[in-house]
Amino acid sequence: MMTSVNKFLSNSGKSMKRSVIREILKNLQNPEMISFAGGLPAPETFPVEELKEITLEVLEKDGASALQYGTTEGDTLLRKMLVEKHKRDGLDLSIDNIIITTGSQQALDLIGRIFVDSGDYVLCGLPSYLGGLNAFSVYGAMLKGISLDEKGMKPDELENTIINLKELGKKIKFLYIIPDFQNPAGITIPEERRVKIIEIAEKYDILIVEDSPYRDIRFSGESQPLMYKLDKTGRVITLCTFSKIFAPGFRVGWIVGHPEILDKIVMAKQTADLCTSAFVQKVIARYLEKGLLEKNLSKTIALYSERRNHMIKCFRKYMPAGVSWTEPEGGLFLFVTLPQGIDTERVFKKAIEKNVAFVSGSTFFCNDSGHNTMRMNFSYSKPEVIDEGIKRLALVIEEEITGR
Amino acid sequence: MMTSVNKFLSNSGKSMKRSVIREILKNLQNPEMISFAGGLPAPETFPVEELKEITLEVLEKDGASALQYGTTEGDTLLRKMLVEKHKRDGLDLSIDNIIITTGSQQALDLIGRIFVDSGDYVLCGLPSYLGGLNAFSVYGAMLKGISLDEKGMKPDELENTIINLKELGKKIKFLYIIPDFQNPAGITIPEERRVKIIEIAEKYDILIVEDSPYRDIRFSGESQPLMYKLDKTGRVITLCTFSKIFAPGFRVGWIVGHPEILDKIVMAKQTADLCTSAFVQKVIARYLEKGLLEKNLSKTIALYSERRNHMIKCFRKYMPAGVSWTEPEGGLFLFVTLPQGIDTERVFKKAIEKNVAFVSGSTFFCNDSGHNTMRMNFSYSKPEVIDEGIKRLALVIEEEITGR
Repeated sequence: MMTSVNKFLSNSGKSMKRSVIREILKNLQNPEMISFAGGLPAPETFPVEELKEITLEVLEKDGASALQYGTTEGDTLLRKMLVEKHKRDGLDLSIDNIIITTGSQQALDLIGRIFVDSGDYVLCGLPSYLGGLNAFSVYGAMLKGISLDEKGMKPDELENTIINLKELGKKIKFLYIIPDFQNPAGITIPEERRVKIIEIAEKYDILIVEDSPYRDIRFSGESQPLMYKLDKTGRVITLCTFSKIFAPGFRVGWIVGHPEILDKIVMAKQTADLCTSAFVQKVIARYLEKGLLEKNLSKTIALYSERRNHMIKCFRKYMPAGVSWTEPEGGLFLFVTLPQGIDTERVFKKAIEKNVAFVSGSTFFCNDSGHNTMRMNFSYSKPEVIDEGIKRLALVIEEEITGR
Repeated sequence: MMTSVNKFLSNSGKSMKRSVIREILKNLQNPEMISFAGGLPAPETFPVEELKEITLEVLEKDGASALQYGTTEGDTLLRKMLVEKHKRDGLDLSIDNIIITTGSQQALDLIGRIFVDSGDYVLCGLPSYLGGLNAFSVYGAMLKGISLDEKGMKPDELENTIINLKELGKKIKFLYIIPDFQNPAGITIPEERRVKIIEIAEKYDILIVEDSPYRDIRFSGESQPLMYKLDKTGRVITLCTFSKIFAPGFRVGWIVGHPEILDKIVMAKQTADLCTSAFVQKVIARYLEKGLLEKNLSKTIALYSERRNHMIKCFRKYMPAGVSWTEPEGGLFLFVTLPQGIDTERVFKKAIEKNVAFVSGSTFFCNDSGHNTMRMNFSYSKPEVIDEGIKRLALVIEEEITGR
């Protein structure tokens, strides 16, 4: 290029970094590589046969609208089916409480767009899903992390942080929280803690963005109510997706929220992509209408539960002393802590040479901590691959611990 | 809602308006309504039968990757097919010059995101595609319009505007231009004018965003080279889409540009939606590979040409004196000018009562001019519907002119 692109960039354009996780995924073309890095669903769970039938049906009966522009709010049948789905989860919604997004990553982006001005504060867990943090940072969000204990985000620390920021004259827009099988920490917040966090948000008048992509993937324990259900003042916005419970390749998520908020999100979506593919929305709507989601989901849960258990078994078998890990009741990840002083970015570089990959935990900490942690995905790999991968990884970690 | 959403909104969130066009589309559920408002392709052109076959094929042979997350850059086969497509149009590209977007609306959004800081200037035609202008405004762009003559954007006015803005110390990021069958004015810029505009952009070092969704829909006249082809300094970014030449319901567009610029757009897309649906990308890739696009396109061109001619015939037959319209060599729209002093927003309100809709031209003018103009879509309606619609509209316009 004969002119430099840099001088044209916006502040946001200048500060953008490639997503560490996406870049890892891209560079894993090597067939020898065992990757526990991405949050990839197992392809064995994709309902290929059912989709063959349903895509034909949609094209046959509804081709003209499936291939045309749709409304920004999303396909009406799909939204109705989602009202029904949430009813089974104890929520009383109308379709005006639901809009469809192009994956829940788009929901994160649109929320950043309508709420965040440069310098506004967003509170989040330490650690938190990187894609969420990056989406808010694009709009200039200042991220302030709150530590977790075994029940999730600490209410006292949350309240003190809010008080401190307010005293400094800072504007806090919302709390970003992943209450079910937190990515990456795996923690599920119990009901009473959810209530407590909502009370704090209400007391200091901040919004809550509840991100819940894994909610339906529970292996054990009791389901806890969505924060959306517990909230009484319309301040919770809940993000859901078909990526982990159906297939990511369709790029369909949805937002549950107060119509006043959704109205603004619709306006933001109009300039972002006009509408989500009508075709894929209609296919998913029929898939739900036929009751296939629940059927497929129970197979997915059985498969992931087995893989989770197998990964934990391998950890017990192969990992050296001083390594600990979560045993989550659901979701797609284990979160692993190595002895203090071990840097998982160094471990990563060595692991890649041994053809095994993961995501360094520090990526998920907005305060540059967590250098001795790592996120391990267990949904994608077959048991024998998990076995081999954890064996390789344990050797690298052992070397790193003993060689200190 | 017990708390007010307004106090949480970003500046961008506060200033967002619903797209006039999208809102018109949404309110056209009345089956009696004849709408010339949206830029909707004719459903008769959608290749439903071919898609039945290809979706089956993709699910059968490539289901696991079609339903998984894809790379942010887009499906490799699709990008290769696009390199081939552009080669037939005289462009020598590699796949590194192409990334896939979720419709070309997303491309507009991502370009706004990486280039525009609040207060930066974007130059555009008077008139220009509303969805482009709105996408840039989200990021705080100041829009400055340049008039068109029968050959498109006026070079002298462009240069003087740049000089004036630079003297005022303003930062101009790019020129937004629609050189083929401009939306809404219908004008195609001849090669020598394209060269002249590129020279000005080069002289004052600004980028050019070339939006070309209708390029392949040409009824008559000679194709003019893409500005991307004429540019020698890597400053042109070209936006293309399958929405008008295949089907909008898949939401697939692409950007042609210098790899340095695309690199930044990829980072922006990572936080916007991670990737475009792998499934629909793979379906389109096979559709192109089978050579079906050109075959279908020639039928589309024949159909739209007939409808354009028919609409012009109806204009001649029914419109009162003082009404003039463009006769574009391609695209989807006529642009209509009523006598000075007639306000097409008033006409619109009366027309809606008579069950006929269009878009008031002033929507497309960033300087609040063009109140006596309107945009008429001819691709969507069948000839007999065009006839009835123009008859109704002519009556409303006649009333408005004579009743003055």
